[in-house]
Amino acid sequence: MELVKEALAANRYALARLISLIEDDGADARTALAALYPRTGQAHVVGITGAPGTGKSTLVNELAKGWRAQDVTVGVVAVDPSSPFTGGALLGDRVRMRDLAGDPGVFVRSMASRGSLGGLARATGDVVKVLDAVGFAVVLVETVGAGQSEVDIARTAHTTVVVEAPGMGDEVQALKAGLLEIADVLVVNKADRPGAAQTARALEMAINRNSPAGEGGEPAWRPPIVQTVALDGSGVPEVLKAVAAHREHLCASGQWAGRARARVETELINVLQQELLARLRARVGEGEMQAWVERITAREVDVYTAVRAILGPGTGTRMNADKRG
Amino acid sequence: MELVKEALAANRYALARLISLIEDDGADARTALAALYPRTGQAHVVGITGAPGTGKSTLVNELAKGWRAQDVTVGVVAVDPSSPFTGGALLGDRVRMRDLAGDPGVFVRSMASRGSLGGLARATGDVVKVLDAVGFAVVLVETVGAGQSEVDIARTAHTTVVVEAPGMGDEVQALKAGLLEIADVLVVNKADRPGAAQTARALEMAINRNSPAGEGGEPAWRPPIVQTVALDGSGVPEVLKAVAAHREHLCASGQWAGRARARVETELINVLQQELLARLRARVGEGEMQAWVERITAREVDVYTAVRAILGPGTGTRMNADKRG
Repeated sequence: MELVKEALAANRYALARLISLIEDDGADARTALAALYPRTGQAHVVGITGAPGTGKSTLVNELAKGWRAQDVTVGVVAVDPSSPFTGGALLGDRVRMRDLAGDPGVFVRSMASRGSLGGLARATGDVVKVLDAVGFAVVLVETVGAGQSEVDIARTAHTTVVVEAPGMGDEVQALKAGLLEIADVLVVNKADRPGAAQTARALEMAINRNSPAGEGGEPAWRPPIVQTVALDGSGVPEVLKAVAAHREHLCASGQWAGRARARVETELINVLQQELLARLRARVGEGEMQAWVERITAREVDVYTAVRAILGPGTGTRMNADKRG
Repeated sequence: MELVKEALAANRYALARLISLIEDDGADARTALAALYPRTGQAHVVGITGAPGTGKSTLVNELAKGWRAQDVTVGVVAVDPSSPFTGGALLGDRVRMRDLAGDPGVFVRSMASRGSLGGLARATGDVVKVLDAVGFAVVLVETVGAGQSEVDIARTAHTTVVVEAPGMGDEVQALKAGLLEIADVLVVNKADRPGAAQTARALEMAINRNSPAGEGGEPAWRPPIVQTVALDGSGVPEVLKAVAAHREHLCASGQWAGRARARVETELINVLQQELLARLRARVGEGEMQAWVERITAREVDVYTAVRAILGPGTGTRMNADKRG
């Protein structure tokens, strides 16, 4: 396809159109992705997650500037609905992005939220692949670290940066939300505010409580804690160093391939589920589907019994085990 | 089943065991849900969502106390990983829950996060059904309003309360996260803090920008904005009144049934997707599935081509449309 060729030739307008095509998820999208896929696997995929208000988007901006200063190209995929990149901010935030405007080594794409569970994850994965294939050395994926689906997206990055800020509420948000388990690098942003040292200590203690053993006997990685003030750039070089060190660790320990494989597995299951449903809907027909919704709503039948009736008795799943009344 | 009978007879221990059974999702769970399902549809399902740090959990606690004072029974399903109800809090928060301990008119259940997209939504929906069937008049579902799946969960409640707090970051979080669209009642909690009036005004302005027309020609509902200090209970009676008024509005306008139907449709699709995948995995076999993961990881094939190979050419979906290279 012409568009793929132009995007590979660093035509930004073609790249933007290609990504729109892929978000629309038609037959051409599948053809384009199939053509691009052999070129993927080079980029370092870095997830950045944390609660709204931690200054995550400002940090993403500063990290992108930091990589650019080292002549590293950066693609940004903003899945966070509160990110200025996604257009969610009302005032002011956009100003920060001006630093990156006009630099051909940076490309920012925001993801609209999708109607269905899994739709956003699929689209995000595909956009990461496009940015990887066209040659961005780092692909940053920014998500809100609070929803199960967003945590699932972050989990499949090579390196996951979890951003915390002092004084966000009663507690350290990252610990509450179960983000510590997926963190490869911990950032305490807004470190010029009161409570930053306590937040860092709380994270330190939590890491010490976590098992220090690596996955499957692999050498352990201890997530470094970096204090930053993203607004003035303090601490940003240390975050870049920590991310690079984690990449080294993944390569040296063989975990790079494991992370890549986990991402593929999540994606395969997600695409299978969506395609199975699409085929079922086409087979059953929308009228019949709506009739089932009516019957369940009227409490003539419960959802599990309806699903068994729609799909037939099937084999080998828990739903077909011995049923006792 | 004995457990269902005991749970219906207000045996709390049986109820807790029944819910655990349902979370485990075996054949007995399906039987129990089928037995309980005709008894559902009575409860007012109220979603409460908002960013971490807004004091949402404290508000849930105060609302539950408020309903209890009116002799209304309340079931709470905490899906929020940062909620004290889910055990995510490190210190202190648990103290608040003591107010509700020992009251048979309140039942709190926290949901562990699930391994798969959609698993949490399914389990949450089932627990809501159990609490509805055994007779809780209000079922509160607490979620973090930041992830797509959590927004999807909140969207299916009869009434969705969106909680905001002043000074959480640069902006009004609810607006950023696209929560305004799903809000039936807006709460500015921590209203004793600086900036509460500005936050309320920002929400007011955003509501005015939104189209005032109701869905499908229905009479419009304008989300009221209530300022609260959940820690001392200020404003909580007004939230209870707003939630009751919204229920009146839903019933009077016929939208109550529409909300119920939307919840059923989301649930049917979710259960169908999970069951379709389970059946496929059983048919294809785990070895073959892993072989496909390897092939995709090695870039011998892309995920969409693999899915077409696993499922066969199929009919009537976009993936089978004319493919051009």
